[in-house]
Amino acid sequence: MRLSQSFIKTRKQVPSDETAKNAKLLIQAGFIHKEMAGVYSYTTLGLKVLENIKQIVREEMNSIGGQEVQMTVLQPKEIWEKTDRWDDSKVDNWFKTKLANGTELGVGLTHEEPIVDLLKDYLSSYKDLPIFVYQIQSKFRNELRAKSGLLRGREFIMKDMYSFARSQKEHDELYEQAAKAYSRVYDRLGIGKVTYRVKADGGIFTDKYSDEYQTISPIGEDTLFNVPGTDKFFNEEVAPSNAPQISVDKKKLPIEDVEGKGIVGVEALAKFLNIPVEKTTKTMIYQTDSGEIIAAAVRGGYEVNEIKLRKVIGTKGVKLADEATVKRVTKAEIGYAGLLNLPKEVRLIVDESCSNRTNFETGANKTNFHTINVNWDRDIPMPKEFYDIKVAKLGDSDPESGKVYETKRAVEVGNIFPLESKYSDALNLYYIDESGKRQSIVMGCYGIGVSRLAGLLAEYFSDDKGLVWPENIAPAQVYLVRLGDSGTTVKYADRIYKKLVNKGIETIYDDRDMRPGEKFADADLMGIPHRVVISDKTIQADKIEYKRRSDREAKLMNEEEFFQILK
Amino acid sequence: MRLSQSFIKTRKQVPSDETAKNAKLLIQAGFIHKEMAGVYSYTTLGLKVLENIKQIVREEMNSIGGQEVQMTVLQPKEIWEKTDRWDDSKVDNWFKTKLANGTELGVGLTHEEPIVDLLKDYLSSYKDLPIFVYQIQSKFRNELRAKSGLLRGREFIMKDMYSFARSQKEHDELYEQAAKAYSRVYDRLGIGKVTYRVKADGGIFTDKYSDEYQTISPIGEDTLFNVPGTDKFFNEEVAPSNAPQISVDKKKLPIEDVEGKGIVGVEALAKFLNIPVEKTTKTMIYQTDSGEIIAAAVRGGYEVNEIKLRKVIGTKGVKLADEATVKRVTKAEIGYAGLLNLPKEVRLIVDESCSNRTNFETGANKTNFHTINVNWDRDIPMPKEFYDIKVAKLGDSDPESGKVYETKRAVEVGNIFPLESKYSDALNLYYIDESGKRQSIVMGCYGIGVSRLAGLLAEYFSDDKGLVWPENIAPAQVYLVRLGDSGTTVKYADRIYKKLVNKGIETIYDDRDMRPGEKFADADLMGIPHRVVISDKTIQADKIEYKRRSDREAKLMNEEEFFQILK
Repeated sequence: MRLSQSFIKTRKQVPSDETAKNAKLLIQAGFIHKEMAGVYSYTTLGLKVLENIKQIVREEMNSIGGQEVQMTVLQPKEIWEKTDRWDDSKVDNWFKTKLANGTELGVGLTHEEPIVDLLKDYLSSYKDLPIFVYQIQSKFRNELRAKSGLLRGREFIMKDMYSFARSQKEHDELYEQAAKAYSRVYDRLGIGKVTYRVKADGGIFTDKYSDEYQTISPIGEDTLFNVPGTDKFFNEEVAPSNAPQISVDKKKLPIEDVEGKGIVGVEALAKFLNIPVEKTTKTMIYQTDSGEIIAAAVRGGYEVNEIKLRKVIGTKGVKLADEATVKRVTKAEIGYAGLLNLPKEVRLIVDESCSNRTNFETGANKTNFHTINVNWDRDIPMPKEFYDIKVAKLGDSDPESGKVYETKRAVEVGNIFPLESKYSDALNLYYIDESGKRQSIVMGCYGIGVSRLAGLLAEYFSDDKGLVWPENIAPAQVYLVRLGDSGTTVKYADRIYKKLVNKGIETIYDDRDMRPGEKFADADLMGIPHRVVISDKTIQADKIEYKRRSDREAKLMNEEEFFQILK
Repeated sequence: MRLSQSFIKTRKQVPSDETAKNAKLLIQAGFIHKEMAGVYSYTTLGLKVLENIKQIVREEMNSIGGQEVQMTVLQPKEIWEKTDRWDDSKVDNWFKTKLANGTELGVGLTHEEPIVDLLKDYLSSYKDLPIFVYQIQSKFRNELRAKSGLLRGREFIMKDMYSFARSQKEHDELYEQAAKAYSRVYDRLGIGKVTYRVKADGGIFTDKYSDEYQTISPIGEDTLFNVPGTDKFFNEEVAPSNAPQISVDKKKLPIEDVEGKGIVGVEALAKFLNIPVEKTTKTMIYQTDSGEIIAAAVRGGYEVNEIKLRKVIGTKGVKLADEATVKRVTKAEIGYAGLLNLPKEVRLIVDESCSNRTNFETGANKTNFHTINVNWDRDIPMPKEFYDIKVAKLGDSDPESGKVYETKRAVEVGNIFPLESKYSDALNLYYIDESGKRQSIVMGCYGIGVSRLAGLLAEYFSDDKGLVWPENIAPAQVYLVRLGDSGTTVKYADRIYKKLVNKGIETIYDDRDMRPGEKFADADLMGIPHRVVISDKTIQADKIEYKRRSDREAKLMNEEEFFQILK
């Protein structure tokens, strides 16, 4: 590509509302154009980066038998109603539109329902399974905020794969095959060493974890909990955790109700009561779909983790109780719920962080009052079992190994999900087994955000001068700078360009009438791996000037040496 | 691809609401899946066909310097308001949606506005021009009816290219370059000999024609007018035409008003008056944006062509006058408008088909009355000029050559459009010329419907057994049938499959446990160019059985001969 004939230019300015480093880098280098928050167009350079990433993903999905298809953006609501994912109260980030006759349509945000619906035309027998089907396509999510450039798009490019198995066991094998393919993708993208398989929430319809692939990065939106020295990682949202032990008082003090009105937060409460935060208790009243009332208690300084709570209770639908219910069961205004004197209908679920405490505080279930110096068994029966229902935090340890976690910020670059038979059953996709019996199909889904990866890689492979693409992602291998426009130089540079093109080496030929410094700056900004300079001077020396993007200094070398490097 | 491991199956049934032959063929062969009217998913096979077409289109656009980009589906309304193409009353086939905060967005139906907006970041100088920029992307049009399978989609895949030139002359050169690239595309797709460049309406903002590429086909929605023996083609909507002459009466009869109430249509009127249809006159009252009243008259049997009328008048906005206006200027109820006694404010525009007539009829401009035996100059002044404002019909001749047109049905497979500076000016994209002056940019746009072509080619290359793909479009080159599952056969067929794969020849390996007839039927239905059969019998003969899809009979040949054919 001759820059003199390309519309692409690097830019000094980025849109004033652009705050994400990845988008800034890519806009300045001429790779993308911002249409609106979370919606970007791709120039020729940006598109090549996307295509390179897609191709790696495609090859690895194909390597495990993935069959590529292309589903549609426009979605009929009927199939989504069958899985209860149509209503905006259930899925809050749909874009919706309408046919001219008023029929509502969805704008595709994921494709579990359509792939199951499509396969109803094709799958029926055990002989048809197992299979992997995938597509690479634009997806649309009506995000409230989209300030992370390519990392969180309202319109973004995604590879989504779905597996269909005859049994849980067969599913588990497919799932691990896909996991291995994912690892290979990240290895090939050059981020394998900083990308981890992380246990995450499996969603509301399964007890299982899902797996996320997370790349360690300071810009990450997620916090990972890692057992040091192992590759055991949990997303903060599910990390099982033991709180650090606190010291036990030798003497049990007399229980006492202390008046303290309108104190907000456990820090303020601890200060007011002159006790350590660890002796306070946070008690939250929940309600399940079936009407059960739960009092969930964690030690001061922790929050209740609803994902963990849900699994303890064993039901999908758990939400904070409404004000009337809280008042009824605690006989107090909001803010004074505690462990004492709760009616029998309330089930108490207490986090392990509360277990080994003496003389602790809890809400008094009496407006404006807090009870202090509470002790298990003396004042309230010790629960038969303590649970882990807290959001893990720094200092907590892994219950299995006892090791204190390390935490890291990370960007999610993929996820794989066991779906059990939720979608296949709901949409009536079954198979007939060897004995003629109808059986459920066990599904998995596997996502990789292609445009998100482009953003992550841009940011990850960059320095203060711009982008630093790895060779297999770069939109071109060589940035050929022609300095001056003497006949000899033009002829020489044109010849090198032609030779590169003939060898199938993607080359950006900077044949513009611009100052050397500007050309070098553009080569750096665009992050092209190999830079070559041709000038009267280099021709006189019968050399070319070569610099790797990641090198500091250029050096002179023979043409042959240069072509050797590209091999 | 081993069929035993692919989810794809041919189908006996197609959805009952599917009426288009192209969609039926592709659904039965397992290439596409209908999501809803005008919205189709693509299986692995369908996707390969699309990719093959895209690649041909891409190569030809690149060959004229086209720079590929990817714009967005979600569209901000601001840029469309600047060109007055946002409002549903102006563009009636938008799909629209909303951000969570209520901001309206469009779902991309074309991309003139966004490409101009994008290029504002890059273009400023005469040195930056001329350029071609294109993309291949899904488009969305809220069509009222979508019953033509892939030929008219609500969601469809399109290549859209835009050119930017410094002058009309430079634009004209780019336009012709693009036209040549289009011809090469159709040649490579195998429909070059039945695809013609056809003059069509240039739209309301230019005097120029646009050009359509139309493939002759009985399923076409368009009618073409061709000057026999030439490659001069017009779309019916713009075909210039002379009506056949009618005989002139020697004697002028006395003019007379005849009462005839509620006669509908010129056929009925001619019968009632006992005159040939050609002696009747159809007079329509129009109104322009600037308030001018027009009486447009064509000979009975013709319709007024509003595109032609618009050009004669030289204004964009022409519409049928409202009832009150018609009544006011004709002093009669609707249905009796004629040429006589119109007020001076009415401009008379008479089609050439009315010129050479004697003793003709016209509405009397008097309720329930028709005037007969009207003669130019005796009863009404002969207009200084007659125009061509009629919809051409069979029997008409080309005014330039005088030859009588032939008409053909055709499918539009591409169009190229001069846009002048409508979009660039409206969105404030200019360039600075050599002398430092700001100049308008002259644009063109160039569309090819990729999925429409897939549908057209499916239908065009088919027979009573199914699809018959040309090699460069086919999703695979070879359909390898293994008959039986003896060890020898499996080994032999596996070896041939491996050999084909190693040579990079896309192959569908039918290794399923099915009857020979079913496999042969599937090979035909899918339309794969080369069919090979391996069985115990062929192995014994040390041959393979080969049949080209378009051949009737299979023949035995050596393995070497077969591989020779594929070269």
